[in-house]
Amino acid sequence: MKIKHIEHIGIAVRSLEQAIAFYETKLGLPCYAIEEVPEQKVRTAFFKVGQTKVELLESTDPEGPIGKFIENRGEGVHHIAFATEGLQENLDELARNGIRLIDKNPRYGAEGLHIAFLHPKDTLGVLTELCENPKQ
Amino acid sequence: MKIKHIEHIGIAVRSLEQAIAFYETKLGLPCYAIEEVPEQKVRTAFFKVGQTKVELLESTDPEGPIGKFIENRGEGVHHIAFATEGLQENLDELARNGIRLIDKNPRYGAEGLHIAFLHPKDTLGVLTELCENPKQ
Repeated sequence: MKIKHIEHIGIAVRSLEQAIAFYETKLGLPCYAIEEVPEQKVRTAFFKVGQTKVELLESTDPEGPIGKFIENRGEGVHHIAFATEGLQENLDELARNGIRLIDKNPRYGAEGLHIAFLHPKDTLGVLTELCENPKQ
Repeated sequence: MKIKHIEHIGIAVRSLEQAIAFYETKLGLPCYAIEEVPEQKVRTAFFKVGQTKVELLESTDPEGPIGKFIENRGEGVHHIAFATEGLQENLDELARNGIRLIDKNPRYGAEGLHIAFLHPKDTLGVLTELCENPKQ
């Protein structure tokens, strides 16, 4: 598998507005996009940090994955996403190597990316996402 | 404050050897350095992922910060480190803006960097490190 860079770091926050204010006024990182992803029951805000993005995730439903994450663990890093090429081949290779997959096939994520999650029990406790940009 | 890129992501692991094997054989990322940091009671392993590094952290003492983190939360992302310039000025600015600092002045971290941690209660639950490379 060829990982190119860290596409983004997903961070679960209680309030997108308060979190955007922190990133913009304290860290000096301007928010460049806000997007709702209804399938994931989240509103997201994006910040460019060099090659990588920070993706803030606010739950729109207490029963959604981010709502449950915050209830269990509080705010904090939710997942790390690696930019790859050949996403389906990478997933097949990982499965052959004994890594459990949450998504056996790519699905659509924010910003038009193809994405798939690996199971955190097989990735040292870090919920890991692989991404492929179909336009590249 | 000017953040240039994400310098590294620190990930707490139980076994550095098992974690290195996962990163190398499953994710295809070669480990380029192993370093012990006695002041932090950790052994670390580094992987380049584009502009950013993954820093795996294994505790050398159950009473150290990584030992306690794993005892409380299990393996997972421990901190995010941003590369900055003017680290002392940035710390002073953050303190003036009401952000509590774990380190009011820079100290030495792995790889010869000057580093300082901000308090996670003021950074949306993400333990946040600022780094400056004195050689750049």
